[in-house]
Amino acid sequence: MAGSTYGNIFRITTWGESHGKGVGVVVDGCPAGLELCEADIQKFLNRRKPGQSKYTTPRKEDDAVEILSGVFEGKTTGTPISMVVFNKTQRSADYSEIASYYRPGHADYTFDMKYGFRDYRGGGRSSGRETIGRVAAGAVAIRILSQLGIRINAYSKSIGPVTIDYDRFSMDDAAGNPFYMPDSKAAQEVAVFAEKKMEEHDSVGGVIECVISGVMPGIGETVFDKLDASLSKAVMSIGAVKGFEIGDGFGAAAAFGSTNNDGFAFKNGRIIKTTNHAGGTLGGMSDGTDIVFRAAVKPTPSIAAIQHTVNKSGENIDVSIKGRHDPMIVPRAVVVVEAMAALTLVDLIFTNMSARMDRIQKFYEEERFNNE
Amino acid sequence: MAGSTYGNIFRITTWGESHGKGVGVVVDGCPAGLELCEADIQKFLNRRKPGQSKYTTPRKEDDAVEILSGVFEGKTTGTPISMVVFNKTQRSADYSEIASYYRPGHADYTFDMKYGFRDYRGGGRSSGRETIGRVAAGAVAIRILSQLGIRINAYSKSIGPVTIDYDRFSMDDAAGNPFYMPDSKAAQEVAVFAEKKMEEHDSVGGVIECVISGVMPGIGETVFDKLDASLSKAVMSIGAVKGFEIGDGFGAAAAFGSTNNDGFAFKNGRIIKTTNHAGGTLGGMSDGTDIVFRAAVKPTPSIAAIQHTVNKSGENIDVSIKGRHDPMIVPRAVVVVEAMAALTLVDLIFTNMSARMDRIQKFYEEERFNNE
Amino acid sequence: MAGSTYGNIFRITTWGESHGKGVGVVVDGCPAGLELCEADIQKFLNRRKPGQSKYTTPRKEDDAVEILSGVFEGKTTGTPISMVVFNKTQRSADYSEIASYYRPGHADYTFDMKYGFRDYRGGGRSSGRETIGRVAAGAVAIRILSQLGIRINAYSKSIGPVTIDYDRFSMDDAAGNPFYMPDSKAAQEVAVFAEKKMEEHDSVGGVIECVISGVMPGIGETVFDKLDASLSKAVMSIGAVKGFEIGDGFGAAAAFGSTNNDGFAFKNGRIIKTTNHAGGTLGGMSDGTDIVFRAAVKPTPSIAAIQHTVNKSGENIDVSIKGRHDPMIVPRAVVVVEAMAALTLVDLIFTNMSARMDRIQKFYEEERFNNE
Amino acid sequence: MAGSTYGNIFRITTWGESHGKGVGVVVDGCPAGLELCEADIQKFLNRRKPGQSKYTTPRKEDDAVEILSGVFEGKTTGTPISMVVFNKTQRSADYSEIASYYRPGHADYTFDMKYGFRDYRGGGRSSGRETIGRVAAGAVAIRILSQLGIRINAYSKSIGPVTIDYDRFSMDDAAGNPFYMPDSKAAQEVAVFAEKKMEEHDSVGGVIECVISGVMPGIGETVFDKLDASLSKAVMSIGAVKGFEIGDGFGAAAAFGSTNNDGFAFKNGRIIKTTNHAGGTLGGMSDGTDIVFRAAVKPTPSIAAIQHTVNKSGENIDVSIKGRHDPMIVPRAVVVVEAMAALTLVDLIFTNMSARMDRIQKFYEEERFNNE
Repeated sequence: MAGSTYGNIFRITTWGESHGKGVGVVVDGCPAGLELCEADIQKFLNRRKPGQSKYTTPRKEDDAVEILSGVFEGKTTGTPISMVVFNKTQRSADYSEIASYYRPGHADYTFDMKYGFRDYRGGGRSSGRETIGRVAAGAVAIRILSQLGIRINAYSKSIGPVTIDYDRFSMDDAAGNPFYMPDSKAAQEVAVFAEKKMEEHDSVGGVIECVISGVMPGIGETVFDKLDASLSKAVMSIGAVKGFEIGDGFGAAAAFGSTNNDGFAFKNGRIIKTTNHAGGTLGGMSDGTDIVFRAAVKPTPSIAAIQHTVNKSGENIDVSIKGRHDPMIVPRAVVVVEAMAALTLVDLIFTNMSARMDRIQKFYEEERFNNE
Repeated sequence: MAGSTYGNIFRITTWGESHGKGVGVVVDGCPAGLELCEADIQKFLNRRKPGQSKYTTPRKEDDAVEILSGVFEGKTTGTPISMVVFNKTQRSADYSEIASYYRPGHADYTFDMKYGFRDYRGGGRSSGRETIGRVAAGAVAIRILSQLGIRINAYSKSIGPVTIDYDRFSMDDAAGNPFYMPDSKAAQEVAVFAEKKMEEHDSVGGVIECVISGVMPGIGETVFDKLDASLSKAVMSIGAVKGFEIGDGFGAAAAFGSTNNDGFAFKNGRIIKTTNHAGGTLGGMSDGTDIVFRAAVKPTPSIAAIQHTVNKSGENIDVSIKGRHDPMIVPRAVVVVEAMAALTLVDLIFTNMSARMDRIQKFYEEERFNNE
Repeated sequence: MAGSTYGNIFRITTWGESHGKGVGVVVDGCPAGLELCEADIQKFLNRRKPGQSKYTTPRKEDDAVEILSGVFEGKTTGTPISMVVFNKTQRSADYSEIASYYRPGHADYTFDMKYGFRDYRGGGRSSGRETIGRVAAGAVAIRILSQLGIRINAYSKSIGPVTIDYDRFSMDDAAGNPFYMPDSKAAQEVAVFAEKKMEEHDSVGGVIECVISGVMPGIGETVFDKLDASLSKAVMSIGAVKGFEIGDGFGAAAAFGSTNNDGFAFKNGRIIKTTNHAGGTLGGMSDGTDIVFRAAVKPTPSIAAIQHTVNKSGENIDVSIKGRHDPMIVPRAVVVVEAMAALTLVDLIFTNMSARMDRIQKFYEEERFNNE
Repeated sequence: MAGSTYGNIFRITTWGESHGKGVGVVVDGCPAGLELCEADIQKFLNRRKPGQSKYTTPRKEDDAVEILSGVFEGKTTGTPISMVVFNKTQRSADYSEIASYYRPGHADYTFDMKYGFRDYRGGGRSSGRETIGRVAAGAVAIRILSQLGIRINAYSKSIGPVTIDYDRFSMDDAAGNPFYMPDSKAAQEVAVFAEKKMEEHDSVGGVIECVISGVMPGIGETVFDKLDASLSKAVMSIGAVKGFEIGDGFGAAAAFGSTNNDGFAFKNGRIIKTTNHAGGTLGGMSDGTDIVFRAAVKPTPSIAAIQHTVNKSGENIDVSIKGRHDPMIVPRAVVVVEAMAALTLVDLIFTNMSARMDRIQKFYEEERFNNE
């Protein structure tokens, strides 16, 4: 339960602080023979890089990834893949003020309570930069899934009061606007709203939705390590996420059995579900339909508007968080959601390989035959 | 990732099928010296027992727990606590029909896909009876937390369209009505609504809320094993749960930084939060305020109303699930939510014991002194 | 690290005290579709049962196993297999004397130091009866291995001063003498020696050897979870084992590179090793040859001869352990060694299934095709 | 079971290949507030550095460690400590020949069998350089133990035919000779013997002994995660180790109960053991006396003497491993044994903190009091 490790057979360990020497990840349990190079990772990291529009912090960070191990002649070797992004701007700022008080909505206070002190520079380990390791590892997981015909697409479903219209849904649109919203018109509305909030020195939240296609039925364990439960932890472990739901989610709580159950039917000789209120799982296992879940993301806690808090001298004070911060977390968190979903799914797919004796036997016999 | 195991230092493994010989749990990692007897467990199991009102299935099950190991002279010994509830009604029914088709909203189809066949009697491992092991283990965890001054209270926040009014909130009320609703008036409304739905051969969902008090600041790990993320997996692993949120949850997604952040202040020389939108965690660690989370529970999938599905002969068929089933899952799931929260919290509290070097050193020195 | 759990994907949890209600095990992660009944388990338990010759304790224990879950219509279902042996002789003895002092060579003292008190009846959790759970679970693992063409044979290599002669080696002999020694002549010598030691109220140790055949090359992880390292922990976790070696073991420490290295050669178009000093592993992975390891087993600590110890009143006292105890642990531990080796191997074989991307891909595609 | 991770609460993940960009480790679960700097790590790494005498390979490697995260203002922060040693000599050699055949006694063959191909440069992941990560992490663990008053000393007990004389035992001597032998006279004999073997292009093995002092009674779990079993896996996971024994080890197998049991006695009001045949554990838990274990280390497999093997063209060939290699592994492995023992012990000490309810309660109350 050392807390920076995720996964069981396919396991990652992230490390690094916002303003330390760098941030990184070790991926242990990646199969051998996967083609992998730094560019494969970099394209995912670029999606969470700051400074890409006026709606994200203008901090300049290259976030260039280096693979230090586990890849040889362009392919993974089966041994740990160590990846690092060295921080460029380690010493730039004066953090003495931030060190002296607790920012509302941040982990400053709880870090001090847990460990007795904290690396206060830029949020330390609780910085959004911690997700760089997740995304780098997630990029590896997404490559594995892609080889199995599985696709993961996350996007902003709503930001502030603006929600996408599924009639205008287009994943191409998502990549084309700074909000990663698959509906250009909604994105334009968000832009107007966001500018207003930025002028008010305030920030907004939103909802990320994620759709996973191509997962065969039966993935996920039946009791504690259910697919939906595992996805939930994965996604809730992202800093600003405050809620998770799958399929109709909280909507199902207000539904009836007769409307919430998905019927089965034969279509072209195959079993299908006629609806997907469940969001792609039954009893914690994938049911072969799209897996659809959502994450509630809170507004950026760092705002320039005046807030009340306490300092280490025992005084009640008013603060305004300096620097220009992202007015919203949602767009940059989209790729983190994809990463966490992919990491979870790979681990459960590998776990599932030993679910049936006859398949294990066939696999072992073929493997032995091929090895000899 | 063998899927019926939960927890790391404080770890449980549940087993058993609905209509097998019994269901049970092994609790490994329980500290020595905790006073424990079967009655301590039984009172929690009684809260999830069927047949207690006309709104739950009238199946008669004693669900009497036996402790088989790990307790000696009234106290836990530090070795595994094995608990079992033997099933009384193993062979009563004819399951040949249910074996022949896939019930909508159940795990029948996915079990077959994962394992090639299934124990179709009463849902097998995916039956609600699986939660008996969770509740028995949870009762042990709740006793541990109680010794640390921590209280867990879950209750039905809403059932169907009826939501509690916090002005009438009373935990005493919750124990007094069949819906475990801390608002007698709301409970009466639910009764009327439930009867109507039962007449329609339909079922309803709802929302369970859980409040945990007395947790010191700093519990929970900082990255993947955050307190809220861990609670989320714990709760989402309960069969019918489709959503989880902490604090303002999905509401936070529609809020602003200025309204969602909880300010800090000094009060009587101690640091407090002036609001609790966060639900008791910051950066994944407890912040000393009440931990408040909610679970969305779907309607019972077993309904007598006609549903469309497929059978094993390859035909599209209409089915009506026989037997009288719970018209709602929520009231009996309340104690399961408490159990899962307690199991999660105990594990994270134990993990946190090695968070600081000075405290480890003091602990070890005292322990050595006491042992010698 | 809750200490009664072993394995990762194929995971067991044992429970129970010598004189509690029973002892048992839960096997989690067993693949579905394995034919299994109680007789399959019982035949292994019978090999460790007491009272089978005058060289083992004459305590009468049936040790009849019951399968409580995870098996349906004669096959495993993929869900946890719970197995129990109820104790027959729970209350027979008066343990007040044994409760008052610390037996040399037993865990009485350390149990008290760790937990503050102990279940002193018959050794409690540190009794040899704890291995019943291991053997029952091991029987399942051995069945799995058997389907993959893997055979495990352990036997007594030496008892006291008597060592087997490999020129007379016969596994048929092993089952035919009370010492599980694959050399009848050696067994006869042990009988003479053992009687002498029993007259002296003393006990003897010995060495168990285990040979595993049919393991394909490449099983075992490359760094910490090496096959040999994992086997070592598995075997050293058996109560009385004080040493472990693989291949030439401690003999290799006195050898030279030129004599200890095993050469490779082609034979009938396949790569073979011309010798097997390594004992079947290279770099922690199986190399396709027999895996050969040994365990050093200490003499039974319970002896009738006078020993010096302390009691709880703070006095130095002399004790003679009453009751007739096994004059040697080795023969009954042979099947426990087999069980632990099998549990370890199954877990590593399952882990290895996700070692290569191309094989994962082929497996997933076939699985998906078969499911649909 | 991703194989490059070790430990549970105090957990490390090593990465890196012999001739990749570097080797490193992430330590997750290290308590906050431990004073730590690079020099603390470097002094342990220096003990395993090559090129320090004519009995080790003359390869020049600086092995300078960098701490990339987890330390702030000279103290650990409780977050992951990432450490790296960049390789200096990445591209120096031509490995095309070594790529073409399987070196006897190395993991070349099994790596190919497991993963389909391998990083053949300098042994890749199976190189001795992999232990750099272990030693760096072990240095952190040793610092933690040192704060608890626990000391770990490993040394060469025998090399080839030369064994130390305990009458001349001196740990000061060990640091003063290239064999890390606590007996200068024995070291001189080894020097003579080693030179002879080097002339013969051969290599020698040996035995490492390790003594751990100051461990309070009760550390180690009672069934699978016994202290001795855990140490065994830790030590057997080091590349060249072929055997492990604790206390009298294989000697105990030839002993009698009357001679092997350690009596208890009161001395100055405290319980002591009058002998230590057990090597400091009873029932898998520390008993308060010195923990004494030994590891059998095989001779260096890389020798210049002619050996028989196969190449990838399907031919039986004769090879002589080029380059000057260590004629013995033992001296440089001593610090790796210390590291693995320390990592194991820290994890078990942390686990033991939640062994007793009364102590948990006291700890939690004090912690809460201190936090508020």
